[in-house]
Amino acid sequence: MTLDQLVKQNAAWLNASGSYSDIIVSSRVRLARNLRDIPFATLTKASDEDRIVDTVLDAARATESLAKAEYYDLSSMDELERQLLVERHLISPTLAMRAGRGGVMVGPEETYSVMINEEDHLRIQALVAGFEPHAAWKTVDAMDTELASHLDIAFDEEFGFLTACPTNTGTGLRASILIHLPGLVLVQTIEQVLRGISQVGLTVRGFYGEGTDVVGGLFQISNQVTLGISEQEILDTIERVVRQIIDYEYDARNTLVRDAKAQIEDKIGRAYGILSNAHVLSGQEFMNLTSAVRLGIGLGLLPSPDLKLLNDLMVRIQPSHIQRVSEAVLDSEGRDFHRAQLVRERFANGSA
Amino acid sequence: MTLDQLVKQNAAWLNASGSYSDIIVSSRVRLARNLRDIPFATLTKASDEDRIVDTVLDAARATESLAKAEYYDLSSMDELERQLLVERHLISPTLAMRAGRGGVMVGPEETYSVMINEEDHLRIQALVAGFEPHAAWKTVDAMDTELASHLDIAFDEEFGFLTACPTNTGTGLRASILIHLPGLVLVQTIEQVLRGISQVGLTVRGFYGEGTDVVGGLFQISNQVTLGISEQEILDTIERVVRQIIDYEYDARNTLVRDAKAQIEDKIGRAYGILSNAHVLSGQEFMNLTSAVRLGIGLGLLPSPDLKLLNDLMVRIQPSHIQRVSEAVLDSEGRDFHRAQLVRERFANGSA
Repeated sequence: MTLDQLVKQNAAWLNASGSYSDIIVSSRVRLARNLRDIPFATLTKASDEDRIVDTVLDAARATESLAKAEYYDLSSMDELERQLLVERHLISPTLAMRAGRGGVMVGPEETYSVMINEEDHLRIQALVAGFEPHAAWKTVDAMDTELASHLDIAFDEEFGFLTACPTNTGTGLRASILIHLPGLVLVQTIEQVLRGISQVGLTVRGFYGEGTDVVGGLFQISNQVTLGISEQEILDTIERVVRQIIDYEYDARNTLVRDAKAQIEDKIGRAYGILSNAHVLSGQEFMNLTSAVRLGIGLGLLPSPDLKLLNDLMVRIQPSHIQRVSEAVLDSEGRDFHRAQLVRERFANGSA
Repeated sequence: MTLDQLVKQNAAWLNASGSYSDIIVSSRVRLARNLRDIPFATLTKASDEDRIVDTVLDAARATESLAKAEYYDLSSMDELERQLLVERHLISPTLAMRAGRGGVMVGPEETYSVMINEEDHLRIQALVAGFEPHAAWKTVDAMDTELASHLDIAFDEEFGFLTACPTNTGTGLRASILIHLPGLVLVQTIEQVLRGISQVGLTVRGFYGEGTDVVGGLFQISNQVTLGISEQEILDTIERVVRQIIDYEYDARNTLVRDAKAQIEDKIGRAYGILSNAHVLSGQEFMNLTSAVRLGIGLGLLPSPDLKLLNDLMVRIQPSHIQRVSEAVLDSEGRDFHRAQLVRERFANGSA
C-alpha cells in the first residue's frame, strides 16, 4: 500500500465503534522492547540501526500476527511524508525526527503499528476504536509473543523488560485512552478530575501526544508507572478510573442540559453552523468547534454529521494531510482555506 | 384590520422590489403639516387634540387616497401595542410616547401612514421598497393635496408650511433612504463618505431612526434642510448623492472580492451558519450577521435566503413583535431564545 493509498484509507480506530464511543474515541496500548546486545537509543550507531531493522523485519516475516503488515522505510521519506504518519498516530514525533535508519510496520486498516528505531528498538502498538484497552492489549500481546520467539529481547529477571528510558522499564506498557470530556470542561470540574487522575498513578496529555496542549476537550489518559506492577494491573487500573470519569462526564452533561439547555443548544448549533459554512478554518478552531458538535451528537441534539466523520476529519484536517491531498505546499493561510473547504464538503455529506 | 392581522402582514416596503434593492431597502418621504388656528405641539390642549383627530379623520374620509386606510387609536393601546407600530415604522417613537389623544391611519400593505398629533398635527408618510424617492413623493403629495382641500393647513407665504419645530418649516418634507453599505464599512471608507454627505446638506441616522446607533451596516440618509428649496430640489439632491454612494458601495464590494475573497466568503458563510443554527440571538447580533448575509446575496454567493425574508425578519425580530407572536411578556433572555427560533425556522425555509 502506497502512502497515498494509506492517506485515503479510513483507519479502523476512528470508526466510532466499540464501548462508549460517544465519549471515548480510541484505546491504545504500546509495548517498548529492545534487542539484547545492541546499544540502546543515543548509543546506537548506524550499523546497529541497520542490524535492528533487518533483524526485526526478518522476525516479523516469520510471524502470523504481522504477516499482513506493510513496511514504510522512513529513511526514504521527506518531512511531510513522515508527518503524515505522525498525524495518523502510526509513528511518534520522536521517530519522525530521527536522522538515522528507521521505519514502521502498519497493519491492515491501521489496527496496529510497530515502530523500529524509535527511542526503543521496538515500539509495538495497537489502536482500537472506543473503550477497549483489553482488546488493544490482546493485539500487542500476540505480536510481542510471536516476535519474542524469533528475537533475543532485552529482559532482566529483576527489572523486567529493559528500555532506553527508565520510565518504561518493567512491563514497557503504556495504555492510553483518548477521551472527550466537554461536559467536565463546561461545568468547570475538569481540573479537579485531572488532579484525581494524577493521584492514582495516571497521567493526562492532549490529543497530539506528550507535551501538547489539550484542545477540543480531548484528553489522553494513560498510565505513568510501568515497573513493579503487572500488565493486567495496569489495564485494570486504567479501566476502573476511566469508567469513573465516564460517569462524571455523563453527570456533567445531564447538569448542563438541565440548567442551561438553550445555551448548550446554542453553542452546539453555532459550532455546527460555522463548520458547515466557514471558508477559513484553523486546526485549533476545528478542534474546538467539533468538540461542541461531538457533544451535540452525544446528547442526541444533532442528526448529522456522524461521529465517524468527526473522527476521520480530526486526522484529515492536519497540515500534512491537507497538503498531500491538495498536492501543494501550502502556508498557514492556504491550509486554513483548504481545511474549511474539506470540512464544508464533508459536513454537507454528513457521513464518513 | 386588527393589530394582530397587521403584525402577520408583510409590508410592501419590505418586499425587496424597486431599484437597487440589493443595496437599498426602502425610500420614505414624509410631510409635516399643521392645522391653522389650533396651537402647535406642547401648546396643544386635550380639547385641541380631540378636535385635530376628529377634523383630520373627517377630512380623510372625504378623500380617495386615504379611503382604504385603517385608523388605529393610540389612546386605547398599551405600550407594547404602540411599540409594534413603531417597529413597523408606521409611527414615530415620539408619537408612541405621547400621553394625549392621537392615532395613525395606515394604508393597504403599509404603503403609507398618516400620524395624527405627533410633534406636528399631521405627519403624512409613504414607504416604498428600493430606491424610489419620487414614487414615495407622489404618494404623499396626492394625500397632501386631497387633505388640504378639506383642511385649513397652516401656511405662510414667506416661510411655507409652518411646523412645530423650525427645522421642518418650509416644505415640511423629509426624504429618507434606508441603505445598506457593508462594503464601505469593510474597506473603512464609510467615515469619509458620511462626512461628504453632511457637507451637501444631508444627514445620516441608524435603522431605528433619530438618535440611534448604526447597526448592521444600515444607514438612513435624509435631507437636513426643508426651507428655501423646493420639494423637487430636495428629492433631486438626495437622488444624486445616493446614486454616487451606490457607486462607491459597488466599488468597495469589487475591491473586497478581488483582494480578500476567502475572508469575505468566510464572513458571509459563518454569519449564515450562525443564523441558521443559533438558539440564543440578540437583536444587535441579528442585525450584524444579516448584514453579512445581505452582502452575500448581493454578491451572488448565497442561494438562500432571499432579501425579502431578511427585510421581513428585520421587523419581526424586534422586542414587541417577538412578544406579540409568542403571546408572552418576555425578558431579554426569553426574547433572544424566541428570536433565534424564528430566525432558524425562517432561514430553513429560505423565503419570506
